[in-house]
Amino acid sequence: MDAPSANSPGRFITLEGGEGAGKSTQIQVVKAYLEDRGIDVIVTREPGGTPAGQEIRSLLVSGDKDKWSPLSETLLILADRAAHLERVIRPALAAGKYVVCDRFFDSTRAYQGVAGGLGLEVIHNLQQVVLDKTLPDVTLLLDIPPEKGLQRAQERGGELRFESKTLAYHQTLRQAFLDFAAQEPDRMAVIDADRDIEVVSADIRSILDDRLNV
Amino acid sequence: MDAPSANSPGRFITLEGGEGAGKSTQIQVVKAYLEDRGIDVIVTREPGGTPAGQEIRSLLVSGDKDKWSPLSETLLILADRAAHLERVIRPALAAGKYVVCDRFFDSTRAYQGVAGGLGLEVIHNLQQVVLDKTLPDVTLLLDIPPEKGLQRAQERGGELRFESKTLAYHQTLRQAFLDFAAQEPDRMAVIDADRDIEVVSADIRSILDDRLNV
Ligand SMILES: Nc1ncnc2c1ncn2[C@@H]1O[C@H](COP(=O)(O)OP(=O)(O)O)[C@@H](O)[C@H]1O
Ligand SMILES: Nc1ncnc2c1ncn2[C@@H]1O[C@H](COP(=O)(O)OP(=O)(O)O)[C@@H](O)[C@H]1O
Ligand SMILES: [Mg+2]
Ligand SMILES: [Mg+2]
Repeated sequence: MDAPSANSPGRFITLEGGEGAGKSTQIQVVKAYLEDRGIDVIVTREPGGTPAGQEIRSLLVSGDKDKWSPLSETLLILADRAAHLERVIRPALAAGKYVVCDRFFDSTRAYQGVAGGLGLEVIHNLQQVVLDKTLPDVTLLLDIPPEKGLQRAQERGGELRFESKTLAYHQTLRQAFLDFAAQEPDRMAVIDADRDIEVVSADIRSILDDRLNV
Repeated sequence: MDAPSANSPGRFITLEGGEGAGKSTQIQVVKAYLEDRGIDVIVTREPGGTPAGQEIRSLLVSGDKDKWSPLSETLLILADRAAHLERVIRPALAAGKYVVCDRFFDSTRAYQGVAGGLGLEVIHNLQQVVLDKTLPDVTLLLDIPPEKGLQRAQERGGELRFESKTLAYHQTLRQAFLDFAAQEPDRMAVIDADRDIEVVSADIRSILDDRLNV
């Protein structure tokens, strides 16, 4: 993180992991950590980080689980991501803000590329055009056995399309995220999310201490 | 058209051109021409050629004219096209049917690539993944001065988002289509659409006589 980032003067932090891992819960911890240090923070999410993107999000999360093929689904997600980058993420980074995003391109690689069977090369070719140079500086991977995450998500309620996929699908997903983290240890930190909220939060604060000089 | 097509045993015919050129009117002429020769025909359109794609279409045609950036717009169109190819076009071609489609990839090249300013290379890189080998065998380009086409479209009523762009935008669009036709004369036929419906239809029938051996 001392090397100059393409996101400079801002920093781009993403949270990744399966359903119910605790991303939406812990993103508030990241926000508070940064704000305590006087940093201007934007908390956002994908899909649906822009008003137009929320229309895409509602297409993605509603309907039958086979409503979209992996390729169509990927293109919808990228349409949302392109709008999010152009209208929210890049302007904020350019203004020196820290952008903290609930899911980003690792989710596309894991869900559509690996678990959806589209392949990482197709995803890479499509994503390259959209991401250009905007990649996360730090990615917090919240790792949890899928049956436990799904149970949390079911208790929480809400959008169900991805949660209705099989357990095998979610296991593939988990392994994909872990493989990405093994390939890019400098960017990605794996956090055991199968612990009490406060314990996970403490871990996240200590990772941010290590990886950000703020 | 005597060389083997990747669409064999079917054939893939597209209609292109600006708003109000007469595509939706003349597609029925193509259908009747083929059916008179005992051919099984599917008439379809983009965006919105599948039930899921109709949800994408409604995102595209509603709202402010700057609601989508050219890149987001392209990705939405490609999400629709991927579904259309997988679920309608390729299965029909494989079953030996003729697929006649109101707008296809030339519209993306002209609207988003040229008039929208995204550039043909970006469009090409994204489209390649989606189209794979499925390209039109014959494309009928209905050419009309934009002010005349827009007047027809206004009298017809209906979806207005693209029609609300400036006249300069529509002139750029027209020239883009003409340039594509000049680059690929074997695939694309330019038809003067600023004539009576019956005169245009007669031209289309004679082009089909020339280009299809049916
Ligand atoms: N460490 C944890 N232990 C127990 N429950 C948790 C934990 N973290 C989150 N939860 C609860 O689990 C549910 C899913 O958490 P959430 O943050 O929405 O996950 P995600 O955003 O990753 O899908 C919520 O009801 C949340 O309160
Ligand atoms: N050659 C023509 N001359 C006059 N009016 C036409 C002609 N072709 C189509 N129209 C009318 O113009 C309007 C737009 O035609 P349409 O086929 O819907 O165009 P497109 O599908 O290319 O936008 C319709 O009301 C149609 O009846
Ligand atoms: Mg969440
Ligand atoms: Mg029409």
